[in-house]
Amino acid sequence: MTANDFFSGLLAKPGNTGNAAGSAVTAATVERLPGLNTLGVSLARIDFAPWGVNPPHTHPRATEIIFVLKGSLHVGFITTANVLFARTLRRGEIFVFPRGLVHFQRNNGRAPAAVVSAFNSQLPGTQAVAATLFGASPPVPDDVLARAFQIDAGLVEAIRAKFPAPM
Amino acid sequence: MTANDFFSGLLAKPGNTGNAAGSAVTAATVERLPGLNTLGVSLARIDFAPWGVNPPHTHPRATEIIFVLKGSLHVGFITTANVLFARTLRRGEIFVFPRGLVHFQRNNGRAPAAVVSAFNSQLPGTQAVAATLFGASPPVPDDVLARAFQIDAGLVEAIRAKFPAPM
Amino acid sequence: MTANDFFSGLLAKPGNTGNAAGSAVTAATVERLPGLNTLGVSLARIDFAPWGVNPPHTHPRATEIIFVLKGSLHVGFITTANVLFARTLRRGEIFVFPRGLVHFQRNNGRAPAAVVSAFNSQLPGTQAVAATLFGASPPVPDDVLARAFQIDAGLVEAIRAKFPAPM
Amino acid sequence: MTANDFFSGLLAKPGNTGNAAGSAVTAATVERLPGLNTLGVSLARIDFAPWGVNPPHTHPRATEIIFVLKGSLHVGFITTANVLFARTLRRGEIFVFPRGLVHFQRNNGRAPAAVVSAFNSQLPGTQAVAATLFGASPPVPDDVLARAFQIDAGLVEAIRAKFPAPM
Amino acid sequence: MTANDFFSGLLAKPGNTGNAAGSAVTAATVERLPGLNTLGVSLARIDFAPWGVNPPHTHPRATEIIFVLKGSLHVGFITTANVLFARTLRRGEIFVFPRGLVHFQRNNGRAPAAVVSAFNSQLPGTQAVAATLFGASPPVPDDVLARAFQIDAGLVEAIRAKFPAPM
Amino acid sequence: MTANDFFSGLLAKPGNTGNAAGSAVTAATVERLPGLNTLGVSLARIDFAPWGVNPPHTHPRATEIIFVLKGSLHVGFITTANVLFARTLRRGEIFVFPRGLVHFQRNNGRAPAAVVSAFNSQLPGTQAVAATLFGASPPVPDDVLARAFQIDAGLVEAIRAKFPAPM
Repeated sequence: MTANDFFSGLLAKPGNTGNAAGSAVTAATVERLPGLNTLGVSLARIDFAPWGVNPPHTHPRATEIIFVLKGSLHVGFITTANVLFARTLRRGEIFVFPRGLVHFQRNNGRAPAAVVSAFNSQLPGTQAVAATLFGASPPVPDDVLARAFQIDAGLVEAIRAKFPAPM
Repeated sequence: MTANDFFSGLLAKPGNTGNAAGSAVTAATVERLPGLNTLGVSLARIDFAPWGVNPPHTHPRATEIIFVLKGSLHVGFITTANVLFARTLRRGEIFVFPRGLVHFQRNNGRAPAAVVSAFNSQLPGTQAVAATLFGASPPVPDDVLARAFQIDAGLVEAIRAKFPAPM
Repeated sequence: MTANDFFSGLLAKPGNTGNAAGSAVTAATVERLPGLNTLGVSLARIDFAPWGVNPPHTHPRATEIIFVLKGSLHVGFITTANVLFARTLRRGEIFVFPRGLVHFQRNNGRAPAAVVSAFNSQLPGTQAVAATLFGASPPVPDDVLARAFQIDAGLVEAIRAKFPAPM
Repeated sequence: MTANDFFSGLLAKPGNTGNAAGSAVTAATVERLPGLNTLGVSLARIDFAPWGVNPPHTHPRATEIIFVLKGSLHVGFITTANVLFARTLRRGEIFVFPRGLVHFQRNNGRAPAAVVSAFNSQLPGTQAVAATLFGASPPVPDDVLARAFQIDAGLVEAIRAKFPAPM
Repeated sequence: MTANDFFSGLLAKPGNTGNAAGSAVTAATVERLPGLNTLGVSLARIDFAPWGVNPPHTHPRATEIIFVLKGSLHVGFITTANVLFARTLRRGEIFVFPRGLVHFQRNNGRAPAAVVSAFNSQLPGTQAVAATLFGASPPVPDDVLARAFQIDAGLVEAIRAKFPAPM
Repeated sequence: MTANDFFSGLLAKPGNTGNAAGSAVTAATVERLPGLNTLGVSLARIDFAPWGVNPPHTHPRATEIIFVLKGSLHVGFITTANVLFARTLRRGEIFVFPRGLVHFQRNNGRAPAAVVSAFNSQLPGTQAVAATLFGASPPVPDDVLARAFQIDAGLVEAIRAKFPAPM
């Protein structure tokens, strides 16, 4: 091993936010930094177009703590008692998303925003809830989604059509 | 402490499945069995009406492994690469839902079904994804949900109306 | 990996209880379910002939929690202060055996009984105390066992003769 | 806290080996050294009269590693496959007893012997197998012990009579 | 608990680098964010005057990973084999300091620099090596320091005079 | 594996204390005892010439607890609040050095002294602070050390000259 196994330049540039959500996550996990192996941490950078959203998601194996690099964000997580803990963050402010809980961030303004995210896992994993449910391959059965969201099968299909299945 | 701190009769009877999902979870965690404190396990029982569904959810702090007590179920989890791992289970068969991943179970038949679920946490927690997003209080902002599901705000409101907020 | 790595049908049928103890343990650990690797759980099924006994044993790496599938059992564990915590369990009732402590189960009736056991380890291990001491190969020295049980060497040999050494 | 919370003189003197087993364990756990709290270690000293035995026992929450202070000992542990791993140790030699496995030590000679034992738990716990089974209060049922050791109830009672129940 | 228990504005402003080292650490641990309790993460911000140094130190209970907010830094850690792993970092670049190893950062330029640091502990602790050895109260004995650094006692005293003892 | 994988004779003889510090550490970690793998413990023996010093050092991955085999020692650790917790130990007395904190031991007398050290890691690692800073290869930059110790670069070089770089 050398010093470069403990280094990455991946997070130095903004990700491409030209997508439906208006946000981009760039991750620096053990898959990119071999030196992280067994060390129990990793970082990511999240960029937001104006009004961009990092949609509700979970990290199955880590707590996340964010630091706002620029812009103003509205962020929150939902507890297992279904209470939303949310607030607005500005540059240099920090917020914690406890292990495994659903959370989101939204750019509150017309300027780009960005955060750096730290995790207590070398590979925290991410499940964007809507894409997980409506973009899985093979698909999650219609009736399961219909029952979960209390919508009809036609609407399930209509939502699913917007999510590309993984290749 | 006495032997009764390590005992519970809570799971001996089926839960009431007369609800929209057609399923009921009865949990025996450290909140009910004080003897579980620091021991890293708990159990639950899940009952299903015919065609009932335990809708997609996560346990933020535990892996789950189930054993089918009766009936036939279709069960699955989605990986962080958005691949659905699913199959049908019959009486006495078992299946694993890895820590923090979204998963579901559905009764495959016209008879009641039931499983016993084991967790490697004294308090695994549960987030039913649809209720977490559409039933939170205060509510998750409309535009966050609209962006996540790629639906319009009117539809967000329509779905939300079906989920009672927590008291 | 596929869904089948997270599945097992091993526990669907009763084990063969036609042995001296009148009980049979069927284990579904990571050795049989590769998907359990790193996930920290496993299951077993224990069947009991009428009056059958799962003799005193420990799991060196896990807490156990059981759910009674059928029958009535007398179960207990002994604390490090040598206090027995025991009680009778019926169908659907649950009981916890804390990590590493000696415990046992006995069928209380003339009908077969069965439990499903959950562990917070992918490979909990088992040491049946009597067989460990009297059936080890090479044998545990006579004087160690004589001193431990406060019996004479002849009796040690007589008990040992009933335990086949491992192959 | 002061330096004395991280100190103990308890192990400086031999324990009293004038008992049936011919051995004495003196423990320095978090109950005596408050500074050990959350630090994950503890020590003990074991003294042996000539031919004295520390009878087969387990530590439910720790691996043990011993260093021979004086004398010659025969030590061993039994694996979950019922294989005895044993050998003779002399002054300054060390041996490991893996987490939760049954193990024993015996003084091999006519001189006193002693070891220092280290554990990776602030409170490892101990279960001396014979005393756990035959000295528990309330007693472990006769038929459970008879079945376990393949002896008759009369012999169970005879062995039990030698073990005082805890107060 | 409320959202504010998971929030802090402490890191939004640069610390005061007008000190001998030319650096300032501002920590956001569980002592300031009660929501971090049991969640296993915390953050800090480190500011550097031109050519300022965060002198060699360890975190006894955590790995650290840094993200450069501004400026150019020379950073490094020393392995237990006494090999220095070091390199220059620029804005947006990241580097890992493995659990417990001695490490340092130095501003490489004539402009202020700053990093955000993430830890996999709610309270990682810090020991600045020189201050720990020469600024302890009561003092570390002269001969211990003289032997360690292979310097004479007069020089030990001269260095110690520069470090204020804790109050 | 055999019993010998859980055994070592490495600590039976004193290490060679004919060096600048007047002390010698002999370690029995997983690198020498393959049986320690995954078991979370290891041992070392430290010998001291008269007035010998085991200079200030840390173990990045373990708490240490020592037992004095012979002689009289002055031992201590420094907290993260820069308070020295120290005291004198005699034969058979024990002392704890919490995970990751700088600590030292010094022989208090004109006779040889020795301790056995236990760690809650199979490979705790060691960083002797002075050698880590002044003996690293490549060297830690002069100005970093000068700033840390508040000494000039000439003195940094003079101290460094006494520490051989690793091969």
